[in-house]
Amino acid sequence: MEKFYNPDRAEWPRILNRPQQDFKEIREIVDTVFREVKEGGDQAVLKYTDKFDGVQLQQMRIYAGETTGAGDQLSEALKDAIRQAKRNIEKFHRAQQTEPIHVETQPGVNCWQEKRAIQKVGLYVPGGTAPLFSTVLMLGIPARIAGCSEIVLCTPPRKDGTIHPAILYTAQLCGIEAIYKVGGIQAIAAMTWGTESIPGVYKIFGPGNQFVTLAKQKATQYGVAIDMPAGPSELLVLADETANPDFIAADLLSQAEHGPDSQVILVTTSRDLQDAVENSLYTQLNSLPRQAIAQKAVGNSRSIYVADEKQAMDLVNEYAPEHLIISAKAEDYYLKHLINAGSVFVGPYTPESAGDYASGTNHTLPTHGFTRQYSGVNLDSFLKSITFQRISETGIQEIGNTIETMAAAEGLWAHKNAVSIRLKALEEAIVPQKEDTKE
Amino acid sequence: MEKFYNPDRAEWPRILNRPQQDFKEIREIVDTVFREVKEGGDQAVLKYTDKFDGVQLQQMRIYAGETTGAGDQLSEALKDAIRQAKRNIEKFHRAQQTEPIHVETQPGVNCWQEKRAIQKVGLYVPGGTAPLFSTVLMLGIPARIAGCSEIVLCTPPRKDGTIHPAILYTAQLCGIEAIYKVGGIQAIAAMTWGTESIPGVYKIFGPGNQFVTLAKQKATQYGVAIDMPAGPSELLVLADETANPDFIAADLLSQAEHGPDSQVILVTTSRDLQDAVENSLYTQLNSLPRQAIAQKAVGNSRSIYVADEKQAMDLVNEYAPEHLIISAKAEDYYLKHLINAGSVFVGPYTPESAGDYASGTNHTLPTHGFTRQYSGVNLDSFLKSITFQRISETGIQEIGNTIETMAAAEGLWAHKNAVSIRLKALEEAIVPQKEDTKE
Repeated sequence: MEKFYNPDRAEWPRILNRPQQDFKEIREIVDTVFREVKEGGDQAVLKYTDKFDGVQLQQMRIYAGETTGAGDQLSEALKDAIRQAKRNIEKFHRAQQTEPIHVETQPGVNCWQEKRAIQKVGLYVPGGTAPLFSTVLMLGIPARIAGCSEIVLCTPPRKDGTIHPAILYTAQLCGIEAIYKVGGIQAIAAMTWGTESIPGVYKIFGPGNQFVTLAKQKATQYGVAIDMPAGPSELLVLADETANPDFIAADLLSQAEHGPDSQVILVTTSRDLQDAVENSLYTQLNSLPRQAIAQKAVGNSRSIYVADEKQAMDLVNEYAPEHLIISAKAEDYYLKHLINAGSVFVGPYTPESAGDYASGTNHTLPTHGFTRQYSGVNLDSFLKSITFQRISETGIQEIGNTIETMAAAEGLWAHKNAVSIRLKALEEAIVPQKEDTKE
Repeated sequence: MEKFYNPDRAEWPRILNRPQQDFKEIREIVDTVFREVKEGGDQAVLKYTDKFDGVQLQQMRIYAGETTGAGDQLSEALKDAIRQAKRNIEKFHRAQQTEPIHVETQPGVNCWQEKRAIQKVGLYVPGGTAPLFSTVLMLGIPARIAGCSEIVLCTPPRKDGTIHPAILYTAQLCGIEAIYKVGGIQAIAAMTWGTESIPGVYKIFGPGNQFVTLAKQKATQYGVAIDMPAGPSELLVLADETANPDFIAADLLSQAEHGPDSQVILVTTSRDLQDAVENSLYTQLNSLPRQAIAQKAVGNSRSIYVADEKQAMDLVNEYAPEHLIISAKAEDYYLKHLINAGSVFVGPYTPESAGDYASGTNHTLPTHGFTRQYSGVNLDSFLKSITFQRISETGIQEIGNTIETMAAAEGLWAHKNAVSIRLKALEEAIVPQKEDTKE
């Protein structure tokens, strides 16, 4: 952990610099897999599942029989925990539902906005070192609340060709039936093109390694939307002398264990806290099972003392962290002036892992500075807005000249004429003067 | 206009097929301009402004002196019209503001969601055959309401090196000061990288030709967000025997005049209307100033009779039109079952041009079938959601075990430990038992 003491602002960009991702080497692999899956469908997907996951599958779709027994393989404590998390996540995402917005902008000119679910969505749940059933909750719950009619879940098979029962149990709990044993680039390509057995979708969600990230970026070139671009996970802790250094160190390590490329940053207005966190961090690190991973991530990390709260806030907004913990007496000031962050954890008893699993907020968040312009996954991620308008006879007479004048000034005469022909008809009373006041 | 009579469903994909865009030839140009602008900054932008727009500029930024006189060059009628449109668009977009969402998911576990403006946004206003000051309203107004702190507007210069006064007047009216005389690929590249005089931005908005479309797609590879992918503009009219064929024909033509690649489609449950619209369309076409353009677009277009409302609705949802006009007695049925459209115009006196200019809705919409998964530009396009949470001492004791159990099951021990260390501290009363109930 590299330490900085009141660095000059000119130094900030260098200090806050994220490890750059170089996709050059893997771009060719992604291109190849996309091309082959487009042409070869299931056969190409199976080939790459064999090649990358080392598993030879006969079929990729999970059938009902495989999921029904999944719950029996889990402890009651784990099932209780998953159900509790589901209730909280549901509550928070259900509260994000919005009513249609109606405005009569001029007499007889009624405009409104309504949301509709994206019909076909793909959820990607990574495999790798941990069975991320929590991601099933984070993507599956809002997709169901939104009312997406076709929800496809892809997750890589384990070496024995199965899916971890916690993932199957959670998917079943969320009402997701279309589960496929396929991961990596070939999963994203399959959901982009559609194959004989895996449906193509309109939008793909979910985290993943750099192969998945690049594959999702490629999918957008073929008209498939994605939730957000992604990079390695990251946490910034903003703390002062009132913070508990052991808690802060534990939070930093919880982020660091995600992967060797994770980045953790402490920004503090207290030199004492800076030292205390460092000591606690190395002590706690020694007792972690994933010590090797966390140690590498800690190597990428920074501890920065700044002289005042204004500088601390500016530094946070410049870094634009995925996760932000605030444990400081000036929390009101920080909450007011915060601009860029994905998910924020306020107060000493709010560890990031609460939001990763169970408090109710979503854990699928923009990283790598993308909180400057992207939201984390939320209910709206599964919806799109449509605008509507109804103009009455009175309405078109009110607004008609405005439209005609503007259309003429833009040289779009047929646009003007679509209004003129209606105004003329009303003037000449060629059309029957029926009331048109519905809205 | 190709006519179809009750086509088989198997035929729909072919009938609804959009002209495909082949970007291969221009991809190399876009790559080159991006590379040169990254390296050469302003000099490269000026070089391509000379090459593509045929204009040699000394500087690109519009200064206050250039805008102050702009209004004097416009008629009072046009300025009145622009101000009226601005009031309506403001009303409708201001109504889209949302309050923060607060939920206590478990006792002591408070989660909330708030929106923040994207700080730096770029608005692209195309040049070409018409001075699209209406686009300035559609992008500038929501950007201002959202509270974006840096709004950059790029629009190509005319041959004489100036910007049309209607664009300058409208920009001034919207409070946009940073206006640059630069268009096409070089404008998008400049807002992606930032140059000596043009600021880089976090998100780029606005329509454009295929060069701009591809450039925006390229910008996303460098971490800049865009409003949506775009293709040629399109209109689908859904009408029955109660519709006025002259109005429908005028609407179809208003879309067709946008460009030779525009697509217009009539879907109707009435054969009589189908014939009447065709007759009216060719009659009206002859009197249009932009007849040549509209005629080509009409050539790409379809008129489809279907036997019933269910089929009509399915066809609309399959096509997923940018603009949809509904002029039919079954409008309630259609509004209820509509899934995919960008902006919808209901009833005989609601021409698409109302929404293009002045009714209040936005005219920057997804095309080419992208209404399946994208919203049109709206207030949220300029905002991002951030989630927050505060967990009290009681709260962590309520939810702690759930988090610990899930973290352990995912093998993420440091995640578990961030909770355990807090629970232990509370049990041992090592930390003072101060109240932590703020939220």
